[in-house]
Amino acid sequence: MAAKTEIMYIKNEDTICAPATVPGTGAISVIRVSGPEALTVADKVIRCRKGNISTAQGYTLKFGLIYDNINNCISCDCNTLPKGKIIDEVLVSIFKAPHSYTGENSVEISCHASSYIVSAIMDLLYQAGARAAEPGEFTQRAFLNGKMDLAQAEAVADVIASQNAAAHQVAFKQMKGGFSSELRDMRSELLELVSLMELELDFSEEEVEFADRSRLDSLLENLIAHVSRLIDSFRLGNAIKNGVPVAIAGATNTGKSTLLNALLGEERAIVSDVHGTTRDTIEETLNIDGVLFRFIDTAGLRETSEIVEKIGIERTFKKLSEATIVLGMVDLTRDEQSTLETVSEILDKVDFKTQKLVILLNKTDIIGVNKNVSTVNNIVSLIDSKGINAEVINIGDFAGPTSLEAPKSNENAVKLLPISAKTGSGIDILRGILATSQRDLLGDSDTTLVTNQRHVQALADARTSLLRVREGLASGLPTDLAAQDIREAIYHLGSIIGEISTDEVLGNIFRNFCIGK
Amino acid sequence: MAAKTEIMYIKNEDTICAPATVPGTGAISVIRVSGPEALTVADKVIRCRKGNISTAQGYTLKFGLIYDNINNCISCDCNTLPKGKIIDEVLVSIFKAPHSYTGENSVEISCHASSYIVSAIMDLLYQAGARAAEPGEFTQRAFLNGKMDLAQAEAVADVIASQNAAAHQVAFKQMKGGFSSELRDMRSELLELVSLMELELDFSEEEVEFADRSRLDSLLENLIAHVSRLIDSFRLGNAIKNGVPVAIAGATNTGKSTLLNALLGEERAIVSDVHGTTRDTIEETLNIDGVLFRFIDTAGLRETSEIVEKIGIERTFKKLSEATIVLGMVDLTRDEQSTLETVSEILDKVDFKTQKLVILLNKTDIIGVNKNVSTVNNIVSLIDSKGINAEVINIGDFAGPTSLEAPKSNENAVKLLPISAKTGSGIDILRGILATSQRDLLGDSDTTLVTNQRHVQALADARTSLLRVREGLASGLPTDLAAQDIREAIYHLGSIIGEISTDEVLGNIFRNFCIGK
Repeated sequence: MAAKTEIMYIKNEDTICAPATVPGTGAISVIRVSGPEALTVADKVIRCRKGNISTAQGYTLKFGLIYDNINNCISCDCNTLPKGKIIDEVLVSIFKAPHSYTGENSVEISCHASSYIVSAIMDLLYQAGARAAEPGEFTQRAFLNGKMDLAQAEAVADVIASQNAAAHQVAFKQMKGGFSSELRDMRSELLELVSLMELELDFSEEEVEFADRSRLDSLLENLIAHVSRLIDSFRLGNAIKNGVPVAIAGATNTGKSTLLNALLGEERAIVSDVHGTTRDTIEETLNIDGVLFRFIDTAGLRETSEIVEKIGIERTFKKLSEATIVLGMVDLTRDEQSTLETVSEILDKVDFKTQKLVILLNKTDIIGVNKNVSTVNNIVSLIDSKGINAEVINIGDFAGPTSLEAPKSNENAVKLLPISAKTGSGIDILRGILATSQRDLLGDSDTTLVTNQRHVQALADARTSLLRVREGLASGLPTDLAAQDIREAIYHLGSIIGEISTDEVLGNIFRNFCIGK
Repeated sequence: MAAKTEIMYIKNEDTICAPATVPGTGAISVIRVSGPEALTVADKVIRCRKGNISTAQGYTLKFGLIYDNINNCISCDCNTLPKGKIIDEVLVSIFKAPHSYTGENSVEISCHASSYIVSAIMDLLYQAGARAAEPGEFTQRAFLNGKMDLAQAEAVADVIASQNAAAHQVAFKQMKGGFSSELRDMRSELLELVSLMELELDFSEEEVEFADRSRLDSLLENLIAHVSRLIDSFRLGNAIKNGVPVAIAGATNTGKSTLLNALLGEERAIVSDVHGTTRDTIEETLNIDGVLFRFIDTAGLRETSEIVEKIGIERTFKKLSEATIVLGMVDLTRDEQSTLETVSEILDKVDFKTQKLVILLNKTDIIGVNKNVSTVNNIVSLIDSKGINAEVINIGDFAGPTSLEAPKSNENAVKLLPISAKTGSGIDILRGILATSQRDLLGDSDTTLVTNQRHVQALADARTSLLRVREGLASGLPTDLAAQDIREAIYHLGSIIGEISTDEVLGNIFRNFCIGK
């Protein structure tokens, strides 16, 4: 708490400014100014025809002119406008503390969206005493001034970055405090747990065991279950926020990159734009029917003969294990033996309890699947031998063996889909399979989903403390030691909403924000 | 005027909306809504905690929530917020006709800058009865509603596109009506001219020549001079707006493209961004000390032996003649004879009255200029033979002949500058020469500069009419015929500020605006 107070003191001394809109040539750009001197800084830079900004009411707009020099006379009732070149005509939105985004005095200057004008106005604001805001500093001030907690502040960045309905909904709910209030409820329960334990301590002299030990036990169990559910929700939450991980596996040169291009199609350019802002990897993301997928092109399998390649293969297997969906690529033009070896290797690595597998029979543009009935039948046999159903999807030139034609309604069946990554044949069906398999991501569930790695870590730490409490109580550990573990759990949960935070933690969180937010 | 009225009638029927900020991920995006139903449309989409937008005062802000469904109950005093998912929390700026940019009821919705949120809000606005605005439609409405004339409206786009102080100042002055008021003054003078002529007509029966013919003559001369000055200002105005044209001429493979890259340096990426939005050519622009230069890489000279190349060479000569500055590239590693032929050819094409020439002695990284004293001396002789001074700039490894060392202060002298386009040696001096030569572009002149091709054409048409008036009066043409020519001049000047405009003219003007302006 000391660190937090100290930061508040330092940060609120000065007045910050930054462009809040995306740079470029457009109709309007907005520049934000916030801090104790925001209104007087604005008065130094902007001439209003009547009255000035400092004395205007909050939640009002004023029209004004910005000249290329700072004039110290801030009273503009004189009707004598200063001489000099006009930089722009602007509209100023006026907010008075605490009724603003940051909780401080603030203005938003709406000017013509020319990079020349925006930089000229920024220069004037610096001259008038404001300084350039750090990334995320407006939201950081909102947090430090108690307008939102840390989990809410972090969600602001997620709301902005959200590219689809599901990700937006999860982030928006967190921004509005849904997750935070759940954490506060758990905190109250933990405090109740502590008070129950202290009650027991009070009676410990008399060697009377606490009357309602079962209440303590059930509270603890509920809390552990709740924390565990939140931790488990990260797999879904992360899939919604960062995309459902799809690994493309197969031997080298079976067309994995071509498939990736075919899937991305025209969206590639848009997708690439997003990358620079959200992650550093070269994974590609694609929005199919409102669900975000994250495609991971793995190194080719079957190259283990050389030691140097082994590391690459291990990495491939690790990526396979993290994927929700595995696309196994088979090259129909290869010999049956090597194809079956590859499929067998993939089958060994897939966990059919948590992962879905689709076998793609590629290069139908070169060789029809009906020329490969034996290979396909043997792949199906391999899958059957694992106790898993297989379903061959009948498209285009592939009639397929009769025994496989009947559609199986088993959603967990491994699907075999003939495609041509090169011509795009079958790709639409693949998109459909992907979208359908993740329908639950589009659900209107009111369950809280954790989407943030920092939060998962804190929850895991809290669970460890709670499990220690349970273990301790079961093994007759003194209650005061258990109470210490509960205080640790409270600490970890509190760190999520920022009740405990250090300068370093805050720096890490807000560094990834965009300027002006 | 009929066309104008008709357009007003059609356009003002409906309510338009568009994002007004540059798309992308940032802190804030602004969506503009304008039209008779703007406030009620906003009320259908945005829930305010207290009161609604229609009944709020102009120039105020309201905080509200946007849900994913349109609820027809626009009264929100009931405190029962509709159910559904929240798309965003927004701030709404409220403007009431005629006190808005367009002169209509308008709102500006400030939301989180996520493309998902912006498109979701746009969808809701469509559902509520607004339609997507055409490019420039907000400004077109401002014009049609009498908030600005056509020349001012055109300047709005120039203000947004301006990349430097000079271009911004010219555009801003035009937007604020400086050019328009000058045109209106001329129009008054033309009307006075007509009345003077009509006075003469009244007395014509009595064969008494108009008492003060000299006043009519002097008014006419002043007007012709004024229009001519405006037409002539286009060369400067266009240079400020679109860049000072600099042609790079010389034999093939003398390093012209390398020079262009050296000049553009790190700015290339930024420069390219601007291109897509402002012009279609592949010319490169560069801002040096606040002046915009437009570099034209011409086809190589000295290839006239082949007929097919002749067209290219003619195009080069045309570009040379349009340039304000010509950079003549000489390759020091070539034989003296061919170098002198190239220089001679360039000298023949440069108009030293209006154009400036710099001879660049390239490839000093391979061969020092002091190894080429004879070539340099002969180039100087060639220039001298044209009656023009030459000045060899002494840099780096070049000592040069003593006779050439004394710096000449003649600004119009042809400068010879040793450079290495490859290593960048001498490029900074070249930038200095370019910037210094165009210092007048940075002047704080209050003279109106015409920057718009449409305006120049109208001014030229007006001048033609006025010259016919002068000729007619001199040759004793009946005064009523001369009055007809004056009405034509009035028409042409009026077309600039939009007092006469057709649907087609307006369409051409606003088509080039960005969406949301």
